[in-house]
Amino acid sequence: MKFGAQCVVLSIDVKKVNDKWNVFINGGRKDTEIDAIEWAKKGVELGAGELVINSIDEDGMKKGYDIELLKLITDCVSVPVIASGGAGKMEHFYEAIRDANVDGVLAASVFHYQEIKISDLKQYLKNNKISIRI
Amino acid sequence: MKFGAQCVVLSIDVKKVNDKWNVFINGGRKDTEIDAIEWAKKGVELGAGELVINSIDEDGMKKGYDIELLKLITDCVSVPVIASGGAGKMEHFYEAIRDANVDGVLAASVFHYQEIKISDLKQYLKNNKISIRI
Repeated sequence: MKFGAQCVVLSIDVKKVNDKWNVFINGGRKDTEIDAIEWAKKGVELGAGELVINSIDEDGMKKGYDIELLKLITDCVSVPVIASGGAGKMEHFYEAIRDANVDGVLAASVFHYQEIKISDLKQYLKNNKISIRI
Repeated sequence: MKFGAQCVVLSIDVKKVNDKWNVFINGGRKDTEIDAIEWAKKGVELGAGELVINSIDEDGMKKGYDIELLKLITDCVSVPVIASGGAGKMEHFYEAIRDANVDGVLAASVFHYQEIKISDLKQYLKNNKISIRI
């Protein structure tokens, strides 16, 4: 069996509204007014096997993941949490793993033009004592 | 160690342009003109531990995942592939696992208003002989 076989992944798009994190849907256009941390917990109770937490605020900003949000979620749930939104340099991936205790770090645009090479990133994380498959 | 520990996840936003699948960035606004299947293969060669393949065309349509695209990718790579974009009913999750051989099925909006309950979905998949953690 391969790693990751057959699980239901709950993806949560989150945006800060008046100092709380709300769940957005419809590609980030509609605010459900549901609290993201409560929704993450509920999703896991209902059977989600993995969570992808995407910060709409940080997405594309390249200033780093939303560590505070991610930490609040990883403190509450026991399933793997994948950080999404905000990666701009290798340190950002490391911070999310170290400070927010996430299990995976998702990125897209920084890889496309090889601003960050995945192999370099993995070596960098390994050098920083992160347990990662090379 | 938890399932999914510390991997680099490559997320690929894909849109069909003139009968080929192109990689888009910047929230689906910019066409890189990179072929999505080639990029998936390259991403794995470069060290991605998991791929999230999001169909921009199907996202929000609730007509099912892009099985053809997903199958082309799972046929080429050995890392877990998570399907994203298009889930509207339980059969869609099943089809993606059965016909496109994906390892995870990601959804967001159908769970938010409990159009589909995750626990029902998992039971449904199990009843259909899919190996899934309940």
